[in-house]
Amino acid sequence: MEELSFESGPAFARRLDAEDELASFREAFIFADPDLVYLDGNSLGRLAHRTVVRVQKAVEEEWGGELIRGWNAGWYEAPARVGEKIAQLVGARPVQVVVSDSTSVNLFKLTMAALAMRSGRERIVSDALNFPSDLYILQGCIRLLGNRHHLHMVPSADGITVDQQALFDTIDERTALVTLSHVTFKSSFLYDAAAITERAHQVGALVLWDLSHSVGAVPMEMDRWGVDLAVGCTYKYINGGPGAPAFLYVRSDLQEEAISPIWGWFGQRSPFDFDLEYKPAEGIKRFLVGTPPIISLLGMESALDFVLDAGINRIRLKSVRLTSYLVYLVDTVLVPLGFVLGSPRDPARRGSHVSIRHPEGYRINRALIEEMRVLPDFREPDNIRLGLAPLYTSFAEVWEAVDRIRRVVEEERYLRYPAERLPVT
Amino acid sequence: MEELSFESGPAFARRLDAEDELASFREAFIFADPDLVYLDGNSLGRLAHRTVVRVQKAVEEEWGGELIRGWNAGWYEAPARVGEKIAQLVGARPVQVVVSDSTSVNLFKLTMAALAMRSGRERIVSDALNFPSDLYILQGCIRLLGNRHHLHMVPSADGITVDQQALFDTIDERTALVTLSHVTFKSSFLYDAAAITERAHQVGALVLWDLSHSVGAVPMEMDRWGVDLAVGCTYKYINGGPGAPAFLYVRSDLQEEAISPIWGWFGQRSPFDFDLEYKPAEGIKRFLVGTPPIISLLGMESALDFVLDAGINRIRLKSVRLTSYLVYLVDTVLVPLGFVLGSPRDPARRGSHVSIRHPEGYRINRALIEEMRVLPDFREPDNIRLGLAPLYTSFAEVWEAVDRIRRVVEEERYLRYPAERLPVT
Repeated sequence: MEELSFESGPAFARRLDAEDELASFREAFIFADPDLVYLDGNSLGRLAHRTVVRVQKAVEEEWGGELIRGWNAGWYEAPARVGEKIAQLVGARPVQVVVSDSTSVNLFKLTMAALAMRSGRERIVSDALNFPSDLYILQGCIRLLGNRHHLHMVPSADGITVDQQALFDTIDERTALVTLSHVTFKSSFLYDAAAITERAHQVGALVLWDLSHSVGAVPMEMDRWGVDLAVGCTYKYINGGPGAPAFLYVRSDLQEEAISPIWGWFGQRSPFDFDLEYKPAEGIKRFLVGTPPIISLLGMESALDFVLDAGINRIRLKSVRLTSYLVYLVDTVLVPLGFVLGSPRDPARRGSHVSIRHPEGYRINRALIEEMRVLPDFREPDNIRLGLAPLYTSFAEVWEAVDRIRRVVEEERYLRYPAERLPVT
Repeated sequence: MEELSFESGPAFARRLDAEDELASFREAFIFADPDLVYLDGNSLGRLAHRTVVRVQKAVEEEWGGELIRGWNAGWYEAPARVGEKIAQLVGARPVQVVVSDSTSVNLFKLTMAALAMRSGRERIVSDALNFPSDLYILQGCIRLLGNRHHLHMVPSADGITVDQQALFDTIDERTALVTLSHVTFKSSFLYDAAAITERAHQVGALVLWDLSHSVGAVPMEMDRWGVDLAVGCTYKYINGGPGAPAFLYVRSDLQEEAISPIWGWFGQRSPFDFDLEYKPAEGIKRFLVGTPPIISLLGMESALDFVLDAGINRIRLKSVRLTSYLVYLVDTVLVPLGFVLGSPRDPARRGSHVSIRHPEGYRINRALIEEMRVLPDFREPDNIRLGLAPLYTSFAEVWEAVDRIRRVVEEERYLRYPAERLPVT
């Protein structure tokens, strides 16, 4: 990590922007409201101009013009083709990644496959910081398999990190599967995936990483780390659009043994032979299921290309600068106003979003959205998440966001909003 | 069924078009190549003008402009909202249908739920005409449950129909689940779903209908027939676009007992509470899993609205006229050239596509596509499928298609093409 030092005035933010190697990528995205400081790219990434063009082409030229012939003109191969691009991004050799279904469905498929590969073992290790719906999937798998497994959720003492030794102590010869979010959704804690994967392998357990909150923002090395299984989404830092299809990774030497529980059309060896018996396709394609949502998928591909163009190491460099600069401003400007940092202070252990906590976090977040043109998001009980997307978030926006948060608190604007939670419908 | 009589000249086709109540809907669709006779709407429906507009709005205004706020401005409710529209189309009262995943994933979820609800029974009844990937899903479920079940595939004597009595004889007290395609993908055989559902219920079995090849073309009455479970796709007669998300139906009084094996974020009671324990949502929403592909979903909704506007009974009336007219022309023009009908002759037992069989079917199909501007599709061993989509297929196109098929055979154009199958990649 480089040594970073910052100054607090807005001029310094402009200097950081002037030195930003990725600054030109910002122009590739649409800023419908130029005054809006969008800090939720960790939930839904911004729309790129080229994605508008790509979706229009997919709809009008390919579907409208080619009709069914579109399948032979690129659609049919899209899950594997886009999977190869994601493989580059996650440090995986070819034919180990495909685009398929949603993250949850992929997590289900690979968890079921993993538990079958370790059928004599009853322990599943995760943590209390994991994305809740990842835990739901695990709970559903356990019930489906007759409640023979035990889900061991390693606690977090500070709500921000998980103690690695405590995690290691939980991973033992009874452990079938270790499954964690590479970056946790609330605190942005970044696991040492290499060390945990190694620990799991020492005792014969498998690992399944959920890369949703890290992919496109944090470099990763599936091959070098020896990861067994992974899933991830494409609508956060990949900017694929709302609900764009997810991906899954299965290490090549596990692809024969790992059996998907959902035997689908796209995972069949020769689907157009219309055999009545399922024969799995070669390799990673056997983890595909049904017809993928092509319009969403092709739009996502066009956005993914940007991430590859920028290069994940340059993205990470800027991400660390952005989050470190934000942490500096939080310390300088917001801690005196009652905020505490809800994310790791060590950038090596932090993803690309930063949580800040305040007893009035919910009302402050509402004021930011409703009158300050800042869009973060709120996570119970008191976390405001600030997502910094290296491809389009500027240092000036970080400064501006902190300044607007300061004004909401100093001017007591948040008092206009009730603390009762709005129903999220 | 009305009495129909036809004449063979093109003027008669024009007269049928002039009398067609749904003729105006044709203008709502895009005809990029006006000379192309598109007969594959049973595989991928045509693109409507309004879908172009709707997708563009979803991308530019909603994603680009609203960003994450799009979820509260309609996206989050879209699976249930569009599900209600599909419920109208399939004769189901509200809150029994949602849009979710692919047909195959939905079939997996509901098959697993059904087999758990009938855990003492070991027989699954389907048929040899079912869509192969439906059978793959069933095979995968059987394996996952320890090979305790037996898949009984009722054969078809003629490759076109299944004898109802033979099917009834197979459904007995050992039967957990009867699952069939409402309209079969190759021959277009339309089951008497009411009678089969009743028979299954007499012996305590559940039914799961795959409506993919009938929904939007054939009226159906989930409630009146007492159907337990159903799935279907939206990219055929609903014209939702390539890989648009699928739907599922669970009868309301089964929704407590039917447990999805995949416990997802969108199926959680209060997903934004971020509870660590899964608590299923009320009713049909518990069968949702992950984040749906919004762009594909909203595009599909705009097309679905047309089907509702036209009315399924008017659609069926035109569908029967179209297929009956085609059968008349096949008998008159193509049978003398060596074709035989590969679909039921009785329109009451026929969906909206017609298969015609010829020993040189593969080569004839290729010639139609490559030089005659006709787009049917081919299904082994000798079926050319001609899909007639009542919203946009004209009687003149039916006449034209038959005339071009006649020319391919009479002029021996098909001899230019090898009988070896092209690889479908």
